[in-house]
Amino acid sequence: MYRAPVDEIAFTLKHVAGLKAAIEAGSLGDLSEDLVDAILAEAGRFASEEVAPLRQVGDRQGAVLEDGAVRMPEGWPDLYRRWIEGGWNALSGPVDYGGQGLPTMLGVAALEMWNSGAMAFGLGPTLTMGAVEALDRHASEELKATYLEKLVSGEWMGTMNLTEPQAGSDLAALRTRAERAGDGTYRIFGQKIFITYGEHDFTDNIVHLVLARLPDAPTGTRGISLFLVPKFLVNEDGSLGARNDLFCASIEHKLGIHASPTCTMIYGDGFAGDREPGAVGWLVGEENRGLACMFTMMNNARLAVGMQGVAVAEAAFQKALAYANERRQGRAATWRGEGMAPIVHHPDVQRDLLAMKALTSVARAISYCCAHATDMARAGGDKANFWQERANLLTPVAKAFSTDVGCEVASLGVQVHGGMGFIEETGAAALLRDARIAPIYEGTNGIQAIDLVTRKLPQSGGDHVRGYIAELREAVDALRLSNLDGLGRSAERLERALDHLDAATQALLKMLGDGAMQAALAGATPYLRLFALASGGALLARGAVASGAGDRVALLRFFAENLAGETAALRETVIDGGASLEAAAKALVA
Amino acid sequence: MYRAPVDEIAFTLKHVAGLKAAIEAGSLGDLSEDLVDAILAEAGRFASEEVAPLRQVGDRQGAVLEDGAVRMPEGWPDLYRRWIEGGWNALSGPVDYGGQGLPTMLGVAALEMWNSGAMAFGLGPTLTMGAVEALDRHASEELKATYLEKLVSGEWMGTMNLTEPQAGSDLAALRTRAERAGDGTYRIFGQKIFITYGEHDFTDNIVHLVLARLPDAPTGTRGISLFLVPKFLVNEDGSLGARNDLFCASIEHKLGIHASPTCTMIYGDGFAGDREPGAVGWLVGEENRGLACMFTMMNNARLAVGMQGVAVAEAAFQKALAYANERRQGRAATWRGEGMAPIVHHPDVQRDLLAMKALTSVARAISYCCAHATDMARAGGDKANFWQERANLLTPVAKAFSTDVGCEVASLGVQVHGGMGFIEETGAAALLRDARIAPIYEGTNGIQAIDLVTRKLPQSGGDHVRGYIAELREAVDALRLSNLDGLGRSAERLERALDHLDAATQALLKMLGDGAMQAALAGATPYLRLFALASGGALLARGAVASGAGDRVALLRFFAENLAGETAALRETVIDGGASLEAAAKALVA
Repeated sequence: MYRAPVDEIAFTLKHVAGLKAAIEAGSLGDLSEDLVDAILAEAGRFASEEVAPLRQVGDRQGAVLEDGAVRMPEGWPDLYRRWIEGGWNALSGPVDYGGQGLPTMLGVAALEMWNSGAMAFGLGPTLTMGAVEALDRHASEELKATYLEKLVSGEWMGTMNLTEPQAGSDLAALRTRAERAGDGTYRIFGQKIFITYGEHDFTDNIVHLVLARLPDAPTGTRGISLFLVPKFLVNEDGSLGARNDLFCASIEHKLGIHASPTCTMIYGDGFAGDREPGAVGWLVGEENRGLACMFTMMNNARLAVGMQGVAVAEAAFQKALAYANERRQGRAATWRGEGMAPIVHHPDVQRDLLAMKALTSVARAISYCCAHATDMARAGGDKANFWQERANLLTPVAKAFSTDVGCEVASLGVQVHGGMGFIEETGAAALLRDARIAPIYEGTNGIQAIDLVTRKLPQSGGDHVRGYIAELREAVDALRLSNLDGLGRSAERLERALDHLDAATQALLKMLGDGAMQAALAGATPYLRLFALASGGALLARGAVASGAGDRVALLRFFAENLAGETAALRETVIDGGASLEAAAKALVA
Repeated sequence: MYRAPVDEIAFTLKHVAGLKAAIEAGSLGDLSEDLVDAILAEAGRFASEEVAPLRQVGDRQGAVLEDGAVRMPEGWPDLYRRWIEGGWNALSGPVDYGGQGLPTMLGVAALEMWNSGAMAFGLGPTLTMGAVEALDRHASEELKATYLEKLVSGEWMGTMNLTEPQAGSDLAALRTRAERAGDGTYRIFGQKIFITYGEHDFTDNIVHLVLARLPDAPTGTRGISLFLVPKFLVNEDGSLGARNDLFCASIEHKLGIHASPTCTMIYGDGFAGDREPGAVGWLVGEENRGLACMFTMMNNARLAVGMQGVAVAEAAFQKALAYANERRQGRAATWRGEGMAPIVHHPDVQRDLLAMKALTSVARAISYCCAHATDMARAGGDKANFWQERANLLTPVAKAFSTDVGCEVASLGVQVHGGMGFIEETGAAALLRDARIAPIYEGTNGIQAIDLVTRKLPQSGGDHVRGYIAELREAVDALRLSNLDGLGRSAERLERALDHLDAATQALLKMLGDGAMQAALAGATPYLRLFALASGGALLARGAVASGAGDRVALLRFFAENLAGETAALRETVIDGGASLEAAAKALVA
């Protein structure tokens, strides 16, 4: 059973991602290390003792649609109630509307724990938080007054309605339409698919944020507006009024996250019956500027999805480690006890477990650094732009690398369990099933890589990423100078990895400068992994130096000598793999 | 929907794996290329038109246990009947018992197609074929006369009963016991788990091969005997007699291959009721020599499982390619048509698809070469021992690499489908679910790697593997000399990969010679992948030279310039990764 790794999380936040320095510099108001520790400990308790025990029933029963209503798994509505009563939904919410206004770093650390407990549970509130952020930044005071407090507390939940059958990654193809009702409200008509938590029985109202087009809107993404469309209209006194003209037509039968209802939502087909068809909606932000509002939500959602990767990886590692210490098969040189050896003594099982642990640590470090950059950008001041660029740079890496790691580690977890791993009751396979969506939603990992290469590398003319690599080199220099015991070839290998990152980055910047876009696109995915492995190694080095010695140094060395070497091949692929891809791809086109 | 890649299979068999040369040298009797083509075409038709359409119903309904009987999915018993009527079960079976005695290469090629159609279907007969082989080699004439003909035709099916709850990879821990009945037969008592096709309604009898211990047997693996234990006893005239004292107590709820019943089998608990408890069994081979008999089955079973990896990868590639040509999102430089571009035009989707195709081709080439070596060893003559060593060398690589590729490619296939990939009805996720067992059963991939390093490399004092690497170098030399258009850096990159394989092989042989067993074990898994990538590249080169130009050259180049580079990191890990593993692993032990 999952136990939240509170110490590891606290260490990474403070000593790797920069929380301690930020607290000491006063960048985070009156936040103290003690408060951080207290919050993490309590979140860890809730995730381990309340969320995790309900994971399996959630997977087995799933969310069930009956007569337009979605019934959540046994115990889950009550779990949600206890969770919002604990104030967890409001953790990073705006203070003006009852939130605790704590830094993203803490929100993200807590999010990791909820998702380790049960990803299908952790997912729902992520959407609510995105809705809070979008409304807080872009909505009218009236909308905020009506909706924000209840969304911050979690009394109501929010959703994001983007995808349509013909419009997934390409939002320019959206067709859902909005008509002006003449009274300042709008009527929404259309079908949205893959709407996470589009319908459920956790809360008595659900606040949908829906992208749609006005009749006179320009084509493409410049003609999309964002609307708030509640399941129940809200009376002036805040009580619930009429049912709005929207409903959940079906929920998907998915590989994993069975307890998370993935809904097809129908807007404005006359479902409400007693009035003209059209779901009543309110504009958020300006007409035709909906995508900008949605991007507010999407960036944070990307980091949140990255945390799901970290979270499932952590849960899978813990499960596999426990099994490897318990299951006995064969003999092993390091086993001194009687009978067969626990399989944790077999070197090839150790290799799997250490790869799981190291990759999880790297993904966590990158993701927390991304959260830190977000907090620092929000703190304002001279360096706000610098930190915003940093957050921009790290967001696609945190999303894509962490979710790839989630799948990789969950798959290794199945392997460590041997035959038992394939049996559903064991629970290892369920983690792999859950993890598999994260590289897909919130922008596929391919799209993240393209975003990294084409939009993030060129920030400040390439200076931002160059500066980041220089910072990473400092961390590896500090490691070399530390003279810590047991480093082996760590410093040399991590330096080499940074050389590869440097070379590949320069090559991509040159391709972009030369307009060689196809070559740059072809190298995007291997570049993102190269970026994560090289920078992640430097972050592990920072942690090893901060902790001084012991397990953290040994894990860093394992990473440097066994996993960082992949960067050499990735560099080559980025730099000269594109030509062969173009030639070979001709055979793929029907 | 899957279409058997008959031309690709025939090309790989003939020009990469050596079938054409073997036919021309007369090593395979009167087998002709025409006959090979005819058999492959007909197997391809059956797999595409009869097996594949029943995959989804098999996954959805699964095998169901009711009152001790297992009901197979709708249409599956009839599919099996048509399949054996087509003579497919008898393809490589012994001629003396009605088999067609065709080479393993053809058997394996057909197996690929059944498993691409539906892995849960292709799996069952693999066990029967293993039983045929074990009985043909080790059983008494009487047992052969009673059972072989019906097992060869497929009228009855066979099973392998090895695993017990405490004895998975480590068969020394087996507890199932056998008692001498005094009349030449034995009584078997015990519980076996994870018994594939242990019970079903395909055939009216099931022939279990069961490992058990006699009361006076030595401990460990030298005290294990093999018994034939039929579900129904067989009368002298060949008709079915009394029900034997064995039954299926439960079937597992698994991640994938739902239509393959994975049974817990109980032997000798008095189920038959009307006589003394004890399942009636007959000794196969000699007492206490059961493991040797079982190894006959296991080697072939390992190659067969490797084929499942190839098969699922092929099915996943075809599915993803079809979707990528159909689904439209966004714009792409190479798309000249109207509206959004089919996603196959996006470079990062092309990268995924080409990786899927190249890895599938490599796994297929290695597996077919392994089958070829088996055939050549069986053909006898001067080089029989050489070919047996070759088969021994390639079997763990074919099993482990191909099954890893199966998972990797199936996972990429889900990714190419985007959100649709996570929806079960699409069928992409089901391929990943099916594929995930193959790296586990028939010896986990870790055990295959240990087998490769500790038992196969030392064959002929290391000369066999050295000779194999020299052969691979010849293939790459021929590529360099070919002056084919569009090779890019292929020859240089493949040569470098072989240098890495060479260096890692020498290092491992030295570790084994020095008794540095822990270091060798720590490097086993990365070595196996290095072996597969480096040798697979050379095999693709052989195919490119044989075909002359075109798509095969372009795919080879993609592999050489994008996937073969990983070998550099693997070499380092094999050579010096062990020390860091040992240090870091201390933190894993509870």
